[in-house]
Amino acid sequence: MDVMFMITCGRYIRSNLYLLLLIIVQFGPHTVEGVWPLPQAFTSSSERYPVNSQDFYFVYGRQSAAQQGCSVLDTAFKRYFSLIFPNHKSADGVLGFSKRKLFIVETSVDHGDCEGYPNEDSSERYNLSVSAGKATLNAETVWGAVRGLETFSQLVYQDDFGSYFVNKTEIDDFPRFQFRGILLDSSRHFLPVQAILKTLDAMAYSKFNVFHWHIVDDPSFPYQSSTFPDLSSKGAFHPMTHIYTQSDVRRVISYARLWGIRVLPEFDSPGHTKSWGKGQPDLLTPCYRGGTPSGTFGPVNPALPSTYRFMARLFKEVSSVFPDSYVHLGGDEVDFHCWRSNPDVRAFMQKMGFGGDFTKLEAFYIENIVNITSALNKTSIVWQDVFDYHERRTSLSVVEVWRAGCYLCEVRRVVKAGLRVILASPWYLDQPGPTHNWARYYTVWPLAFKGSEEQKKLVIGGEVCMWGEYVDATNLTPRLWPRASAVAERLWSDEKQTSSVDKAFPRLQDFRCKLLRRGIQAEPLYVGHCKHEYQGI
Amino acid sequence: MDVMFMITCGRYIRSNLYLLLLIIVQFGPHTVEGVWPLPQAFTSSSERYPVNSQDFYFVYGRQSAAQQGCSVLDTAFKRYFSLIFPNHKSADGVLGFSKRKLFIVETSVDHGDCEGYPNEDSSERYNLSVSAGKATLNAETVWGAVRGLETFSQLVYQDDFGSYFVNKTEIDDFPRFQFRGILLDSSRHFLPVQAILKTLDAMAYSKFNVFHWHIVDDPSFPYQSSTFPDLSSKGAFHPMTHIYTQSDVRRVISYARLWGIRVLPEFDSPGHTKSWGKGQPDLLTPCYRGGTPSGTFGPVNPALPSTYRFMARLFKEVSSVFPDSYVHLGGDEVDFHCWRSNPDVRAFMQKMGFGGDFTKLEAFYIENIVNITSALNKTSIVWQDVFDYHERRTSLSVVEVWRAGCYLCEVRRVVKAGLRVILASPWYLDQPGPTHNWARYYTVWPLAFKGSEEQKKLVIGGEVCMWGEYVDATNLTPRLWPRASAVAERLWSDEKQTSSVDKAFPRLQDFRCKLLRRGIQAEPLYVGHCKHEYQGI
Repeated sequence: MDVMFMITCGRYIRSNLYLLLLIIVQFGPHTVEGVWPLPQAFTSSSERYPVNSQDFYFVYGRQSAAQQGCSVLDTAFKRYFSLIFPNHKSADGVLGFSKRKLFIVETSVDHGDCEGYPNEDSSERYNLSVSAGKATLNAETVWGAVRGLETFSQLVYQDDFGSYFVNKTEIDDFPRFQFRGILLDSSRHFLPVQAILKTLDAMAYSKFNVFHWHIVDDPSFPYQSSTFPDLSSKGAFHPMTHIYTQSDVRRVISYARLWGIRVLPEFDSPGHTKSWGKGQPDLLTPCYRGGTPSGTFGPVNPALPSTYRFMARLFKEVSSVFPDSYVHLGGDEVDFHCWRSNPDVRAFMQKMGFGGDFTKLEAFYIENIVNITSALNKTSIVWQDVFDYHERRTSLSVVEVWRAGCYLCEVRRVVKAGLRVILASPWYLDQPGPTHNWARYYTVWPLAFKGSEEQKKLVIGGEVCMWGEYVDATNLTPRLWPRASAVAERLWSDEKQTSSVDKAFPRLQDFRCKLLRRGIQAEPLYVGHCKHEYQGI
Repeated sequence: MDVMFMITCGRYIRSNLYLLLLIIVQFGPHTVEGVWPLPQAFTSSSERYPVNSQDFYFVYGRQSAAQQGCSVLDTAFKRYFSLIFPNHKSADGVLGFSKRKLFIVETSVDHGDCEGYPNEDSSERYNLSVSAGKATLNAETVWGAVRGLETFSQLVYQDDFGSYFVNKTEIDDFPRFQFRGILLDSSRHFLPVQAILKTLDAMAYSKFNVFHWHIVDDPSFPYQSSTFPDLSSKGAFHPMTHIYTQSDVRRVISYARLWGIRVLPEFDSPGHTKSWGKGQPDLLTPCYRGGTPSGTFGPVNPALPSTYRFMARLFKEVSSVFPDSYVHLGGDEVDFHCWRSNPDVRAFMQKMGFGGDFTKLEAFYIENIVNITSALNKTSIVWQDVFDYHERRTSLSVVEVWRAGCYLCEVRRVVKAGLRVILASPWYLDQPGPTHNWARYYTVWPLAFKGSEEQKKLVIGGEVCMWGEYVDATNLTPRLWPRASAVAERLWSDEKQTSSVDKAFPRLQDFRCKLLRRGIQAEPLYVGHCKHEYQGI
C-alpha cells in the first residue's frame, strides 16, 4: 500500500452546496442505496468500474495530514482490503479481463491525529467520490475516514462471474447523532473477549461509535481491578477464567479505537452491586429484620465515609484505564427496603435532615459520586432514575432514558432541564421476538417531542441495550444483528429519507447478506436467501 | 479398541425386577441425575472411580452379537471417546495419579445388525452398570447401545484439577415414546449440510431419534431429484449453491444412521408447493379471475391424471433414496380459492360427484398419494388437516397434530379412530421467546386425555418443529437448544419422575453446559455461567 502521487483537494465539499447536485436514483443493491446506514447526501449512476484485488490500492492523498504510519488508517486499509476481497488469495475478479486496470482509493484527512481516541466531539463526516479507476475520500478526521472506508467497502460488489465492480458515486455523509451506542452486559453472563471484539467489528459495519460496557452488576464482577483485586477474585463467576484482566480491557479499548469506537465503562451503583460485596467488606448495606442483621445485603452503604473513599479510589483507577471522557455511573433501580431496615442508615438520614425520604439519600450518594468523577475530569452519565429523584439536577450532565411508556415525555423533561439525553427505551434488543419486528426499532422518532431547536440538540443520540439475563456468546450475535442495524440507520441517517419501512426492507436484507459474507451470524429477516449463506457452524 | 477377554451376561436386567432395587439418591451434577434426559430406573452413589484417556477403552463383550467392524459401534466408540475427553491429545486427567488405572466400557448387544437403519420398532433399551475400572453396557440393539454410550459419556466428569471420574451407577433405561423427532425446514431458508449434521449431533446428545426433513415447500425446492432435475434447477433459491444433491442426502442419512436417527422426508402437497411449479409445468392449478387465467398458481392440480403419474415417479425415487419406512405427505393448509376459481377443477368435481365440497377433492387427492406410497411399502404421515377432512379415515396411518388450542382433544379424536399420533402442537420452537420459557415445553403431558390404555399406546411420540420463516444456520442452534432438550426429556423419561420444573432446572442448566463443552451453541436459560463457555465466535 504505497503512497501514490495523486493530489487531492484535501477538503470535503460542503453539504448544503452539495445537496443542490443531488439526483435521486433508482433503488438497487448496486447503487448507493446499497449502503447501510443510508448516507446523508448522495448520487450514483449505473456507470460501473472494474475493481480487482491484484491492482487495488488504498493510498494517502499528498496533502493529507495523515500519512503512512497512521495506525488508524493503516489498519483500516488492511481490514477493508480483506472485507472487500474476502477470497483475495485465490485469483478473484480477474476472469474476463485481459487488460488489468488499476483502482486506487485515495484518502485524505485534515487533522492528522492518528494516536488519539475518538471522543464526543470527533467529526465523522466524510466525502467520497468514485470515478473510473479512482475513489477520493476526504474527511476532517481519521474517524470520518474510517466511516468513509466502510461506505466504500459496501459499494463494491461482485457480478455473477466473480468480477468486482463499483459504480460512479458521489457521497457527502455525516451522522445525525453524535452518540450511537450498543450496551453489552458482561455481568449476568460473562462474554469472552473474542465475542466483544466480534461485536466491535459488526458495530463498525453499521457505523456505531460507542461500546457501552456494562461490565459489572449483581451477578458477577469480572473486571479485575488493580486497586481492589478481591472484587473479581471473589466477585467474578470464576477468578481466573471469567474475568477481564487489565490486558483484556486494554485490548478491547485499542481494538475499538481502531474502528473509531469509544469504550464507555459503566460501574453501576448504589444498586446492582451484590457482586461487589463479596470482595469489599462493609461496602454494602447490611439489611435488618426484626432489629437484627438478617445476613443479607442491600445497595452500597451511603452512610459510611469509607464508601466514598473506596469509590474515589475505584473511579480513579477506572478513569485512568478507560480513556473516554464519559463514564456511566448507573444509579438505576435502587431498592430502599434494605436502607430503611438499617438503623445506622436511618440515623444518618436524621443527621442529614432527609426525614423519611430515601430519594434524598440516593441523590446525596449520587451527588458524591458525580463529584468524584468530575474531579477526575469525566462527564458522568446516569440512568433516568437519578434525574427523576434528583433535586439539584444542574449537577447532572447526561441522562440515559431507558424506561418504557412515554419515553419522549421523559426526554422532553430532561432537555427542558438543560441536560443531555441518550435514548435507550425503544431499543431493548435483549428481548427476543420475531426478526420482522425490526421495523419496531426502525420506526422510532427520537426528536418527535415539542421543544426548541436548542433543546433537540441536547438529544445526543441513542443506544441499543443487550442485557444479559438470557444472552451470552451463544446467542449474542443473532439477537443483535441485523436488528441493531435498523437502529444504526435511525441514528445515523436523515429521518426524512429513511422513514419508509418498505423501502428499507430490501436494503436491510441486502445489508444482512453483507454481514453474513463478513462472518457475522446475523439472523434472517424473513424467508429468502443470501448468495453466501452463513457456514460457520 | 481391542476386544477384551471379559465375559458379560449379554442380557439386560429386566426393569420390573430392577425397580425393586432402586435407591433414590440426592440430586447432584455428578450423580446419575446429571444425565439428561433422566433415565427410567437408576441408582448411583458417591463412590467414584478415576478414568483417564490414556487407559480408557471401549470394548465389545465376548458374547456380544456385534464385534469389532460393527460400523455403528466402532463409530460411536470413537465419537464418545472424543466427547468424554475433549482435550485428549494433551495430557489430561493424569495429574495426581502416579498409578494409572485401566477403565474399560464393555458393550454387548443381543442383535448384531450393524449395517441396517434404525426404524420405528428398534429397541433403544439399554442397561448400564458402572463399577471400579469397568462399565458394562448391555442392549438389545446397536441403537440401544448408542443411547447407553451417550448416558455413560454424561456420567463422566472432571474435577477442579482436571482429573476425570465416574461414580458407581446402575441404570436400566428405555424411551417412553418410540418417536422423538425434530423438524427442520430447508425450504424457507436453505440450511447448509453442515448445519444439519451439527443438529444431528445435538439431537443424539438429547436422545432424539427422528430427523423430520421438511425439505421442500413454497419458497424453494432444494432437493435435487434425479428423476426431475428441473424441480431444483428452477425451484431452488440457487440451482448450484442452494440444493441438496443426491450425495448430500446420502451423507445426511448415513450420518444420522450412525447416531441411531431416522431421516423422515416430507414432500408436502397439494398445498405448500409453489416452488414445485417452476420446474414442473402443469403440476399446479392455474387460478382464474373473471373467467380467465390470472397468471398465478394454486395447489397441485388434483384433476389431471398427469399429476398422479408425476407423484408416483417422484415418490418412487423418494422411497428409494430415503430408507425409512415412514414418509411424510404433508397435506396441511390447502387453500381452496384457486381450485374453486378453476373451471376444469370444478368440472372434475361435478364428474366425481363432490358437489361444492372441496374437502372431498382434497381427500380424493391425498387418498391417491397415500395409495402410491403404500404401494411402495411406506407408512404415510399426514398433518392433522387431512384427518379432519377425511371421510375414509381407515386409509390413514399416522397423524401429526400441530394446531394450537386443545391439541389433546385432537389427539383423542385421532386415537379414537384407531390411528397413530405424533404430537407437535406444544413444541413449535421456531417461535422465539425468553429461554426461561423452556418450562412451557417441559410441562406438556401428551397422555393427559381420557382414553383406554390401547388408545394411549397409539400416541407414538412427539416432535419439535423448527419452521424456517425466521430461522437459518445463523440462529438455528441457539433457538433449538436447550429448549428442545426439555422436550427430549418429556418424550424419553418417566413422567412422574420428571414432573417438577424446579428439580429439572439445575439439571438442564448442567446439561446445557455439557452442550457448550461439545461445541453446541446452546443459549443460556438464565443468569449464570458454565465452566467452559462457548468460545466459537
